[in-house]
Amino acid sequence: MIGQVRVVGTGLLGASVGLGLRALGVEVIVHDSSPANLSLAIDYGAGRAARDTDNPRLVVVAVPPDVTARVIADELAAFPDALVTDVSSVKVAVLAGVRAAGADVDRYVGSHPLAGRERGGPISARGDLFLGRPWVITPQDGMPAAQVGVIEDLVLDLGAVPVIMTAEQHDTSVALVSHVPQVIASLLARRLIGGTESALSLSGQGLRDTTRIASSDAELWVQILGANAAAVTAVLREYRADLDRAIDTLGAPELPGARRTLAELLAGGTTGVSRIPGKHGQDRRFHQIIVMVDDRPGELARLLTEIGHIGVNMEDLRLEHSPGQQIGLAEISVVPEAEAGLVADLEARGWRIAQVGA
Amino acid sequence: MIGQVRVVGTGLLGASVGLGLRALGVEVIVHDSSPANLSLAIDYGAGRAARDTDNPRLVVVAVPPDVTARVIADELAAFPDALVTDVSSVKVAVLAGVRAAGADVDRYVGSHPLAGRERGGPISARGDLFLGRPWVITPQDGMPAAQVGVIEDLVLDLGAVPVIMTAEQHDTSVALVSHVPQVIASLLARRLIGGTESALSLSGQGLRDTTRIASSDAELWVQILGANAAAVTAVLREYRADLDRAIDTLGAPELPGARRTLAELLAGGTTGVSRIPGKHGQDRRFHQIIVMVDDRPGELARLLTEIGHIGVNMEDLRLEHSPGQQIGLAEISVVPEAEAGLVADLEARGWRIAQVGA
Repeated sequence: MIGQVRVVGTGLLGASVGLGLRALGVEVIVHDSSPANLSLAIDYGAGRAARDTDNPRLVVVAVPPDVTARVIADELAAFPDALVTDVSSVKVAVLAGVRAAGADVDRYVGSHPLAGRERGGPISARGDLFLGRPWVITPQDGMPAAQVGVIEDLVLDLGAVPVIMTAEQHDTSVALVSHVPQVIASLLARRLIGGTESALSLSGQGLRDTTRIASSDAELWVQILGANAAAVTAVLREYRADLDRAIDTLGAPELPGARRTLAELLAGGTTGVSRIPGKHGQDRRFHQIIVMVDDRPGELARLLTEIGHIGVNMEDLRLEHSPGQQIGLAEISVVPEAEAGLVADLEARGWRIAQVGA
Repeated sequence: MIGQVRVVGTGLLGASVGLGLRALGVEVIVHDSSPANLSLAIDYGAGRAARDTDNPRLVVVAVPPDVTARVIADELAAFPDALVTDVSSVKVAVLAGVRAAGADVDRYVGSHPLAGRERGGPISARGDLFLGRPWVITPQDGMPAAQVGVIEDLVLDLGAVPVIMTAEQHDTSVALVSHVPQVIASLLARRLIGGTESALSLSGQGLRDTTRIASSDAELWVQILGANAAAVTAVLREYRADLDRAIDTLGAPELPGARRTLAELLAGGTTGVSRIPGKHGQDRRFHQIIVMVDDRPGELARLLTEIGHIGVNMEDLRLEHSPGQQIGLAEISVVPEAEAGLVADLEARGWRIAQVGA
């Protein structure tokens, strides 16, 4: 347990930190430059309003990237006994900004939870937002372990997984796995503006997935990209070199070697995807069973009840279902050992298995 | 009803056409240059083997793009009374190839179902693969309506939605909504090859979605992109112009106007995404209710049973669940009118609603 925690900024991340800590019985003080946001966050149970007698042990700054360094400096000055962390998506520029402000930077430990939702604001906040997500901590050189440990405790208390990196490592990492994908997806989605209605009517799940993040908050992303511009442009330049090769090759697809170049570029994508850990990457721990379910109320419930009786634990469930169809497909993920028995048991109970595979 | 239908090529699309037509009682003849694939497709019920006495009214060619034109020409010659269509992803080059082969091109009507799965082959085939999906038909100039009507009937019989376009319109449309996204996603995923393990460990759903299609069959895509190279490069060049602007802007993010340029590029992405019809686009017909479900066997079944008792029809269901977590989130889609009542009823029964929104 951590003592009094002060959370500055009650958007999605700040309010979620507040809710998560409150659920553990921690005394949380919330503050926001917007009185409307603040009272909303208090109503949602993210914490209480500040008092003159507050003496927080830890301050969590959760404001937009552009003002993060300034707010950190202000908090360091206002609470000389407190440790200050932040949750912004860039770390080098923030640390430099805190230093430039002449603040007592030794009490600042940067951090960044890799968690979010498509919807922002305190209304979308959830105490379990960080559950199982990585949360990067970027201690400065030579920082006392006890100080870093306070932030690690915060991360663990919120159910996240602490990952220690330097600020530079953090920024090049998120440039690759988060900031560049955002630019790429936005520029692809931008091409759709000029498409005809009938072209757009042919859109499938591939286009939807590839462009989903392009609907994120453009203003916030201008701040993030601006603050991590060097790392982002380094990756974008490598990407552009590949794009140039693809365009050149497709400009003369019948030249000798053209198909081979194209095949190498595309196969490189397959290799790249396989490096992403988790469900769709190399760490594909579960097998999927697809069960056909009649589109009648109660049918899916009956299926899940029977799976419960069979005694198998579902790791994940997805219903594939086009409105108006008579049949839905329930994709059930289970540990590999459970797959064969579950298929046999379900078939014995009369369920149709549409397809089985890893 | 359509008489005898011959399907050439028993991969995912061909076998799915066979299964779908067989379910309607149509006599389906399947053929494949691979005897192994053919017998697998017959075992799966996609059709019967060819006989010398066959006299199909319609031939559906479902072979890889590179050999599509040649196979169409062969089928036109072998069955002088039959109409021939194909299902390949490019239409201009196929038509040109059929013409160049000196075939009786007047009996060829190109088509392309916008349907697919991540997994290919007859094993992944499903009779309902085309349900609700657009299926483009590209009649040649001046083609008799009755002939186009045969293909329209095929499309409607398989539950798909016929869309009439010229071959040129088709190719520029799929370049935008399918072929270019494939290149963009593959090149992005390719960047991950050079990423560190710890960078990759920070991957989130955004990266997974943006790169998912990059794990598609590279060989098949070389053929598709090669056959639609002009339309694809036209869009890729526009994309590169935007990318150049983004890189230039991020090269000097503090210059006057830089942030505005970046904001315009990103906001253009938001506009573009909003043009995609369907669940994540403007035609967002359902509301989502997120219910917290304890990670115990039977809990989800109990929830769905109670929703059945309440009498609400779920349009879609998604379980958000990180393995090891104590709580899963069931995201339930319902028609907007049902939302408020369902939330009230579920709360009255003791369920916790994590968030409600469109």
